[in-house]
Amino acid sequence: MPALQNDILIRALLKKPVPRTPLWIMRQAGRYLPEYRATRKRAGGFLTLCKTPELACEVTLQPVERFDLDAAILFSDILTIPDAMGLGLSFTEGEGPRFSKPVTCMKDVQRIAATQPLEGLDYVYDAVRLVRQELGGRVPLIGFSGSPWTLATYMVEGQTSREFRKIKGMLYAHPELLEHLLEILSQAVVEYLLAQVRAGAQAVMVFDTWGGVLSREAYLNYSLKPMRHVVTELLKTGTQPVVPITLFTKGVGQELADLAATGCHAVGLDWTMEMDQARALVGSRVALQGNLDPAVLYGPDEVIRREVRKVLEKFGTGSGHVFNLGHGIQQYVDPEKVVVLVEAVKEFSPAYH
Amino acid sequence: MPALQNDILIRALLKKPVPRTPLWIMRQAGRYLPEYRATRKRAGGFLTLCKTPELACEVTLQPVERFDLDAAILFSDILTIPDAMGLGLSFTEGEGPRFSKPVTCMKDVQRIAATQPLEGLDYVYDAVRLVRQELGGRVPLIGFSGSPWTLATYMVEGQTSREFRKIKGMLYAHPELLEHLLEILSQAVVEYLLAQVRAGAQAVMVFDTWGGVLSREAYLNYSLKPMRHVVTELLKTGTQPVVPITLFTKGVGQELADLAATGCHAVGLDWTMEMDQARALVGSRVALQGNLDPAVLYGPDEVIRREVRKVLEKFGTGSGHVFNLGHGIQQYVDPEKVVVLVEAVKEFSPAYH
Repeated sequence: MPALQNDILIRALLKKPVPRTPLWIMRQAGRYLPEYRATRKRAGGFLTLCKTPELACEVTLQPVERFDLDAAILFSDILTIPDAMGLGLSFTEGEGPRFSKPVTCMKDVQRIAATQPLEGLDYVYDAVRLVRQELGGRVPLIGFSGSPWTLATYMVEGQTSREFRKIKGMLYAHPELLEHLLEILSQAVVEYLLAQVRAGAQAVMVFDTWGGVLSREAYLNYSLKPMRHVVTELLKTGTQPVVPITLFTKGVGQELADLAATGCHAVGLDWTMEMDQARALVGSRVALQGNLDPAVLYGPDEVIRREVRKVLEKFGTGSGHVFNLGHGIQQYVDPEKVVVLVEAVKEFSPAYH
Repeated sequence: MPALQNDILIRALLKKPVPRTPLWIMRQAGRYLPEYRATRKRAGGFLTLCKTPELACEVTLQPVERFDLDAAILFSDILTIPDAMGLGLSFTEGEGPRFSKPVTCMKDVQRIAATQPLEGLDYVYDAVRLVRQELGGRVPLIGFSGSPWTLATYMVEGQTSREFRKIKGMLYAHPELLEHLLEILSQAVVEYLLAQVRAGAQAVMVFDTWGGVLSREAYLNYSLKPMRHVVTELLKTGTQPVVPITLFTKGVGQELADLAATGCHAVGLDWTMEMDQARALVGSRVALQGNLDPAVLYGPDEVIRREVRKVLEKFGTGSGHVFNLGHGIQQYVDPEKVVVLVEAVKEFSPAYH
């Protein structure tokens, strides 16, 4: 593999000095890009796009070709693991994911425990290898997984939820069932991320989209604890060079400090907490990734520039900041606005280093 | 009007001594009750139920008849004001509210400014009067309104949203338009709540369901500032006896301290922040309402009792706690579980007073 030409993302995640703040965008390979929509149309469906390494590679590279970003992130779905566990994943336009065989009882959990999901995910590792080859060392490639808790929410609810009635019902009525499910998922996430790293991922991120719906105590037990297991196991492998691990819980509050204490290298922040407040909570333990409100990209150019500046200013000086949105870029954003964002980060951020 | 026999809610909201922690339940008149479903069926539709004072009164009283609660809360919808502004409100089963004429430009805002919405809301004040009469002083009646920001989200999005693309687009691209809309709504909310108080509401609550989707700065400008205006104007009226004002922003973080500084008497908490942490943030300024995870009611009786105890213990000793769920009770909860909750609060809470 060719040497990395632009390594400022990796350096910032490890809190090493960088000349400017690195930048990538959550969901940067997504529906707001006309070239993405074209490839997806050609693929026929979202799952085919995820499961065809050549197509997944193509869309992974699209934002890197179009914008001057400091990382590629593998195009994939967060539900690949439950899909490989045989839960019958499908996507309906505008409705999101759906599992035909959700997890409802111990028998379901035991059935899942007997599967070998990692073996069914070669398409992911193939995509990672292809992307690394095509990137030719321009920027690092980030691999990712859903967090065990977040995977469990979809597996138990069977679809996107607002109230999380079924999984929270399980949490309060049958905690042993949920704990067993989370143990299986934690181990699967470890192996999944390690396989991505072996295939070439140079950093990894765990997306805990639904940790924020839990009470503090439930968060610590059912969302954070499994993520800590993932971090601990990944760190044990002692890969060289170090593969930085980023954890991201959307809607996290004071628990940010607990997240930072897991041993991970960086934590992602949504836009509802300010960077200075987050920095006060995590101290110097980890790098911070974020956290522009994705909706700022609906504003005029000068507002985007103003808000970028505010995020940089709130983080302040020193390394350990990876610029990003606080959540995925939305599908109705004009790609030209991303150019404004990228240029603003490049223009303003050197002053903080 | 007969004198109040059970005034512990009012006393706790004003941080006066009480023998035990008062309790009511957000959305206590709701679909989890078979008698509510029967009345709603008889009404034909949700809006008819809201707009027929006799029926609204009937469902308001149902939970008070069934459980030993310390307050009634007016059964109504949070979108009565925008409905009276002529936005064409309708409800589709399972899809939530929809406005046929959402607010998209300054012309729409000016059209709204020219309406007299308060005149169209007599059915609300009539319901308040009826409920007071029927309650016969057993427990106080709480009136309520959506917060200006929360009303604006529905008015601009036209329906329930996940990404709040339109209103946040307005916030970043046309803030003057949003500010104008919020000024109109702030004044309407003041007049609406005052009319409820004149009709007999003995406490009022402002539901800011969507303040938590904003960045801190945007929250302070677009959600908190209008609520502060509402509080200030209500306090100016100097009603005797005092009508306690509770503000509730779902998903609030550090901004809880700002919320408490508005001059309100109490703040509501969802279940994601713990009571001791909240108390540390607000000091002795306000009472706190909450904050059991509504999903706890899916657990077995001993888990409900254990979790009730935890909330009481986290608040600790002294007055200023109103027990409640952290959000509305869900429709699939067994009403018998509410009996367990009520009994647990009555059994455990005297030890903290």
